[in-house]
Amino acid sequence: MTLSAPLVVVGSANADMFVEVDRLPKEGETIAAKSGQTFAGGKGANQASCAARLSYPTYFVGQVGKDGHASLVRDALTSAGVRLDHMNTVKGPTGHALVMLQPGGKSSIVLVQGANVSWPRLADGINRLTTTVQQLIRRAGAVLLQREVPDSVNMEAAKIARSANIPVILDAGGTGTPIPQELLKCVTVLSVNELEVARLTGMPTNTWEQVIKAAAKIQLMGVKNVLVKLGERGAILVPQDGPPLIQRAIQAPVVVDTTGAGDTFTAAYAVALVEHQSPSESLRFAAAAASLCVRAKGAIISMPERQAVLKILVNHIGIEQEMPLPDEHVLQLLEEHTLFPHENTPGTSSQVEEKMQLMQIQPESVTV
Amino acid sequence: MTLSAPLVVVGSANADMFVEVDRLPKEGETIAAKSGQTFAGGKGANQASCAARLSYPTYFVGQVGKDGHASLVRDALTSAGVRLDHMNTVKGPTGHALVMLQPGGKSSIVLVQGANVSWPRLADGINRLTTTVQQLIRRAGAVLLQREVPDSVNMEAAKIARSANIPVILDAGGTGTPIPQELLKCVTVLSVNELEVARLTGMPTNTWEQVIKAAAKIQLMGVKNVLVKLGERGAILVPQDGPPLIQRAIQAPVVVDTTGAGDTFTAAYAVALVEHQSPSESLRFAAAAASLCVRAKGAIISMPERQAVLKILVNHIGIEQEMPLPDEHVLQLLEEHTLFPHENTPGTSSQVEEKMQLMQIQPESVTV
Repeated sequence: MTLSAPLVVVGSANADMFVEVDRLPKEGETIAAKSGQTFAGGKGANQASCAARLSYPTYFVGQVGKDGHASLVRDALTSAGVRLDHMNTVKGPTGHALVMLQPGGKSSIVLVQGANVSWPRLADGINRLTTTVQQLIRRAGAVLLQREVPDSVNMEAAKIARSANIPVILDAGGTGTPIPQELLKCVTVLSVNELEVARLTGMPTNTWEQVIKAAAKIQLMGVKNVLVKLGERGAILVPQDGPPLIQRAIQAPVVVDTTGAGDTFTAAYAVALVEHQSPSESLRFAAAAASLCVRAKGAIISMPERQAVLKILVNHIGIEQEMPLPDEHVLQLLEEHTLFPHENTPGTSSQVEEKMQLMQIQPESVTV
Repeated sequence: MTLSAPLVVVGSANADMFVEVDRLPKEGETIAAKSGQTFAGGKGANQASCAARLSYPTYFVGQVGKDGHASLVRDALTSAGVRLDHMNTVKGPTGHALVMLQPGGKSSIVLVQGANVSWPRLADGINRLTTTVQQLIRRAGAVLLQREVPDSVNMEAAKIARSANIPVILDAGGTGTPIPQELLKCVTVLSVNELEVARLTGMPTNTWEQVIKAAAKIQLMGVKNVLVKLGERGAILVPQDGPPLIQRAIQAPVVVDTTGAGDTFTAAYAVALVEHQSPSESLRFAAAAASLCVRAKGAIISMPERQAVLKILVNHIGIEQEMPLPDEHVLQLLEEHTLFPHENTPGTSSQVEEKMQLMQIQPESVTV
């Protein structure tokens, strides 16, 4: 595994159609939308685009149909710099989602999985990756998966990566069905948000303590490292062999649209991981990328380039000196976290240092 | 006006997304569709495609956005042979419709008008056609309009055509708002279906007599000729200067999908008109085209080529001899029609002959 070994994203590509309506239509009714826009999306395409925009060599392995939505997806991925040598065109529609946005922020969605779930099957009835994709995975720096393609596809990709000793990052987002044990066992880092933690464990995530406990339960399912994304509260990495690392969110001056922020966090973390950044550096890199993503509308089009991420991180160091004293919220967090004193966790000294640094300095809590 | 003077269709272009669902989603809910497909549509694009597939030189004057749906529309129109020299690309989305098909044939639709309603405006605040489009209309064989673009656009196109003595065919389909008197006065043929007749006149259309009475009321609004499309019952042309001409539907062996059949009827009629076919020939031509359209799924993709239409018409003549005696339904129609005896209408002898021929021979009532 060298630095230039590509990131391989196996996953979904969608056309996401957003329409703004006063209310949902009734049966047999036609209503006019106030506005409508269509974007390329799908968690696979989103994460591949994010990684490529961060200038990491990235391949997208996925499927589209032969339609206008395929062009939309292809154009978006190409513009982001994603390699599409292994994107396959199949019969039937490109996956798409009709998102009906209603007043007050509610949205109702009709999903057409289409090409995302019609992977070729072999005689044994399970979905299969082509030989060239298998070879691609064997020379990858890391494999990044989500849950919008069949489990059998993810499973094969993960097993090939695992047998070649290549890290597998699985974003739990996409479907609510249980993650197969067989897949979890191949996963190096499982990236989950609060909803997914609740779905996987049934446990609360109101405090850092609760989050860490829930992550520990997920580790019992076979996953080595659990990355929990908590939105504006930040993120936490609960590693197999060290103390948890907390990363406060890097606040945006104005939050315009959080679409794609979770995908950005996971993909940026994957890029940092494949670049051998330390766990805490990786978390900061991901937090900076996600912070930039929420500052503009859309998913792929709002994902940052590396230069912008580095600028955020540099600015942080600059501002650090001027940081105000921790407020009540921060003090509470610190207090909660002491329930898991690092003395009791079998972390390496550098990990403990990282954690302490994060807990005390909290440079990411500064509004940039 | 020569035979090669093109048909100019000014109108809408859409991406129509059909998703098959068990039920509509609730507020905040995500549901999976059983299937989904996206087609190019919009009454303007449909009618332009139909005319071009019938091998008549056809221009489409309309607007799309800069998105994947625009490619879809462009590809469909180009494949049909439509000239797109005057199709404009504007800011914002291409018009699109989310059609949620529910069990039992009900459908709920969310419409995004997008580029179809964002025509450039001049200082006087009204929408305007470009100078080149104005010139195109002045050298047209006929202008074909529908009601999915602003009335001001239709009005300008109709006025230019009218002042150049070029026939204007207006399909009343698209919106339920009243048709401006100013527009109706420029219309040579108004093409309406039963719903539109009811909307325009509030009158019933259960019998031919009722339809003819309603059409006469529409003529009082300023329209010269009224073409009423009655689906499987056929169509009737109520001209300004002659007796009504009835055209029975040409039945399809199996009706697969009636989408686009009305657009096909109107566009084929417009082609026949611009080719100087007689009114009864034009009706038969349109009925044959519509009959072919309902035999396949989709709108544009199910529209016939001229050769197929001619084959249907030739087959009719062949079958004519073997026609069974009129059944009860036909006898009833004939009876109803005698309420409008041609002796009392100021028709030319050829028109009366045509009518008599249609009423007696009814070749189109034979299943082909």
